[in-house]
Amino acid sequence: MEILPVEGLPEVRPGDDLAALLLASAGEDLAPGDVLVVTHKVVSKAEGRLVDLREVRPSPLAKSFAARHGKDPRHVEVVLRESRRIVRMERGLIISETHHGFVCANAGVDASNVPGEETVCLLPLDPDASAARLARDVRERAGLELPVVISDSFGRPWRNGIANVAIGLCGMSPFADYRGQRDPHGRTLEASVLAVADELAAAAELVMGKTSAVPAAVVRNYPYHPGPGTAKDLLMEPEKDLFR
Amino acid sequence: MEILPVEGLPEVRPGDDLAALLLASAGEDLAPGDVLVVTHKVVSKAEGRLVDLREVRPSPLAKSFAARHGKDPRHVEVVLRESRRIVRMERGLIISETHHGFVCANAGVDASNVPGEETVCLLPLDPDASAARLARDVRERAGLELPVVISDSFGRPWRNGIANVAIGLCGMSPFADYRGQRDPHGRTLEASVLAVADELAAAAELVMGKTSAVPAAVVRNYPYHPGPGTAKDLLMEPEKDLFR
Repeated sequence: MEILPVEGLPEVRPGDDLAALLLASAGEDLAPGDVLVVTHKVVSKAEGRLVDLREVRPSPLAKSFAARHGKDPRHVEVVLRESRRIVRMERGLIISETHHGFVCANAGVDASNVPGEETVCLLPLDPDASAARLARDVRERAGLELPVVISDSFGRPWRNGIANVAIGLCGMSPFADYRGQRDPHGRTLEASVLAVADELAAAAELVMGKTSAVPAAVVRNYPYHPGPGTAKDLLMEPEKDLFR
Repeated sequence: MEILPVEGLPEVRPGDDLAALLLASAGEDLAPGDVLVVTHKVVSKAEGRLVDLREVRPSPLAKSFAARHGKDPRHVEVVLRESRRIVRMERGLIISETHHGFVCANAGVDASNVPGEETVCLLPLDPDASAARLARDVRERAGLELPVVISDSFGRPWRNGIANVAIGLCGMSPFADYRGQRDPHGRTLEASVLAVADELAAAAELVMGKTSAVPAAVVRNYPYHPGPGTAKDLLMEPEKDLFR
């Protein structure tokens, strides 16, 4: 399996044709069977999911929290707006559940790799739909039917550091489901459903980094399961979540 | 970056020289700069971390829980013994904190890919020490100084499916720490500490599968940070864990 960085993309601006930009950078490297992993940041930028903080009027809650922790109240306000539920609000950090159902720090609102001191970037409105549009545009322009994974780096309970996960998906199952299959000793596997979309996102992060302007990667020779699949399938229903 | 499966290993038995077996299978594929990712299962087998259930006398708690959920009380007993704290015990599943500090299902006790109907496999006693021994043995036999990651598949809060993480490590930092560095727009990164050891484990899983007897993978051309590092560094202190 190979993981090829997609380098040389220009700064992506609202309204840009992201598929065209990705194909211009990675075009000759793309082949049938590849999986395209794209960080949400460029997807969000192309979709105009940027907020000018000068236009944000913070609520009393945002002001009070920001004042206590030395944060920008307008940034906090954007985080609150992008949340449907606050999981934890401590030490200047907000862990919340986004409108999509993702549990992550600051509702995915982020100022890194965004031009302008007063601009923050939101997650795509519907990352699965973004992945589907990108897959469609790649198909139309290059004649390639490639699965698309949109990734972001999330913190995790129990463990230090952040790691890439899939927040949008199109063209493949997010899982490799081994239940009912037999291991080499003939024992039937019971609990083995691998979240391969998350593992693809994690693998791609290793060639992206955070400072090197590599917003996408091509995973070659991974035997994915084609078909419908969304990153929403990765969200566990609260009543089934024994870890929660 | 390339991820090469290490194929053709024989069934690993207690006392086997795992480094020799891995080198026999992957030897010519190994090169300076590679990272060796090994599933804990073969490490545990080589270390004799197997339990014959016929020798286990279940406690009343194990018997009662097993009876209510149609489980093997001896297997439940082994899970309890491998735990230092039970996080959740519901619907036949036990989420616990192992003696190492990992939070996972069934304390990592697992019957898949283990020979014998009556045998279960435990996590290595000290996976960081296992990784260090493996790195030392590879160095002594092949003259290669390679980082070693020992992996297992863990469930995660909030998300469906399991994914590979690092439970043992030697020869590299588990993190890529971008704090203080500047993104292409000149903005200083604040919260970007990537758990790359987990991402390497996840990437390797994509070429391993669960039924194909591929217990290791070589990651080539990943610019890891050499130096000391353990998988214990990945364990978040409870008082810092806002997700918990």
